[in-house]
Amino acid sequence: RYFHFCKLPGRVMGIRLLRFTSVVIIVLLLVAGALTALLPNIKDDKMPNLRREPKTQSQSALDSFTLIMQTYNRTDLLLKLLNHYQAIPHLHKVIVVWNNIGEKIPEEMWNSLGPHPVPVIFKVQTVNHMRNRLQNFPELETKAVLMMDDDTLVSAHDLAFAFSVWQQFPEHIVGFVPRKHISTPSGVYSYGSFELQNPGFGNGDQYSMVLIGAAFFHSGYLEDFQRQPEAVYALIDETQNCDDIAMNFLVAKHTGKPSGVFVKPVDIRNLEKDTNSGYSGMWHRAEHLLQRSYCVNKLVNIYDGMPLKYSNIMISQFGFPNYANHKNKM
Amino acid sequence: RYFHFCKLPGRVMGIRLLRFTSVVIIVLLLVAGALTALLPNIKDDKMPNLRREPKTQSQSALDSFTLIMQTYNRTDLLLKLLNHYQAIPHLHKVIVVWNNIGEKIPEEMWNSLGPHPVPVIFKVQTVNHMRNRLQNFPELETKAVLMMDDDTLVSAHDLAFAFSVWQQFPEHIVGFVPRKHISTPSGVYSYGSFELQNPGFGNGDQYSMVLIGAAFFHSGYLEDFQRQPEAVYALIDETQNCDDIAMNFLVAKHTGKPSGVFVKPVDIRNLEKDTNSGYSGMWHRAEHLLQRSYCVNKLVNIYDGMPLKYSNIMISQFGFPNYANHKNKM
Repeated sequence: RYFHFCKLPGRVMGIRLLRFTSVVIIVLLLVAGALTALLPNIKDDKMPNLRREPKTQSQSALDSFTLIMQTYNRTDLLLKLLNHYQAIPHLHKVIVVWNNIGEKIPEEMWNSLGPHPVPVIFKVQTVNHMRNRLQNFPELETKAVLMMDDDTLVSAHDLAFAFSVWQQFPEHIVGFVPRKHISTPSGVYSYGSFELQNPGFGNGDQYSMVLIGAAFFHSGYLEDFQRQPEAVYALIDETQNCDDIAMNFLVAKHTGKPSGVFVKPVDIRNLEKDTNSGYSGMWHRAEHLLQRSYCVNKLVNIYDGMPLKYSNIMISQFGFPNYANHKNKM
Repeated sequence: RYFHFCKLPGRVMGIRLLRFTSVVIIVLLLVAGALTALLPNIKDDKMPNLRREPKTQSQSALDSFTLIMQTYNRTDLLLKLLNHYQAIPHLHKVIVVWNNIGEKIPEEMWNSLGPHPVPVIFKVQTVNHMRNRLQNFPELETKAVLMMDDDTLVSAHDLAFAFSVWQQFPEHIVGFVPRKHISTPSGVYSYGSFELQNPGFGNGDQYSMVLIGAAFFHSGYLEDFQRQPEAVYALIDETQNCDDIAMNFLVAKHTGKPSGVFVKPVDIRNLEKDTNSGYSGMWHRAEHLLQRSYCVNKLVNIYDGMPLKYSNIMISQFGFPNYANHKNKM
């Protein structure tokens, strides 16, 4: 080797240079990788967040919606409903909130039965909590969210129409299940539906909430939900209930108007009876409605006031299924 | 008289002064009178006039409406309807546009049957023109107008609800009779109702006009109507028709949105058959619908484009007459 010394310097220098360069490159890459991982999420705390920017500024982000469906112990219903919902017009993506703790998601089976019209993402949860579905999922790219219970079947026609209505009322919860609160002389509120006394503003009934288990709402409200008082989360976790009432409080406070717009469904069905799991849903618990009245009063305490407002607007689709729905004697 | 000459100057001067002063005063009064008569009406030409200031800034101007009803050759129906409409909640005043040229208004009879819940003003017209009802009546004090044909009976419930809907959509024509236009491959438009083909935006039908013969709209639009191209007035006068189509064009141009919001009436009736006059209304003329298609095309020429937009939103009153109107299988 000594004899090649005169020739080696070039090569040695070359090799040293090469090593040096490689080391520099590798270090730079590591630094870049570290920087990328450490970049903070830029959050605008002041804005009420209806101006959430979708991650892709594509047309689809404005003209389509993301279905978020939480599921517990009814995978048969989930899969049946997914076959239906995956093909709804204007659907961008499905996020399945998997509350079956410790159980594997049916990913293999799902993929083996592909291709599917839209991406379906299974989000594995660590605890079986009702409010898991109200996370600000990073996979969410659209301004609109459609939230459905895992036992509720709404027709494509109804969903397409309700989505078009939501686009005209984007700051409201636009959905198919209206509920109301009433106040009583004692100042204690009660929660219920048509069976409760009408609130007494003229004729007919009023609603002050639209349940999120079958409704469209702005994805910005999921972001807002992350910034609520701790007591709200505690209440929802304590009752495993009332996340939807809390969302209505949030929206009503934000808009100063009735939180929801009720769209009368033509075809909505509850598939509870069709499950093999024997599990029939939280609302069958004896204390379910009493809990919801309890939640209304607790939320009034937490928010220091009653923000819910009444509405009696019921929206239907003109001339669907046919013109008989607007025929009159004239 | 000569002897009094020394005393007369005072009196003579006094009389001359008096005459002079009187003449000056009279001249001043004449000038003042002339000035008052010549004062111009101050009009704000630039504003689109939805900011019309009511003459009294009272609460009633905001929370009530003025009924404008044009009448021709059906005084029996008019009086029957007035008994009903004069008692509608939130009604401020009635303006009857009297198209019975040369015939005395039933003022004596009206007064002899008083007192009445609200003032009713009979506006005598000089020619029997369809567009007489679209004048900017100085008696109009409210932001809202309810316009009704003199053969149309709408229940108080429907009117109270529709007024509350108008208050939520004040820039739209909120009413009970939806119509539409369709375009054809030749570019010629057609006017009609459910019998025409659906415009083809998804399921069901669409409407692009709400007729003003049974509708609420903002009184500012009456002011706007006075500033339309002459050809519009000529068209309405030529056809004795289409004033309502013209109003829908005006509103659609102004808002850039569908001109109307359709409220499905629970109880609306046509009383034509009940008149003793034998007169049964313009829409029975053979050419009525063809004329309206003709008007649509003429207005597109006049306004250099088709401003009408489609909507399929149908609004009903939640839980009225009873909760069955929103019951579902869930």
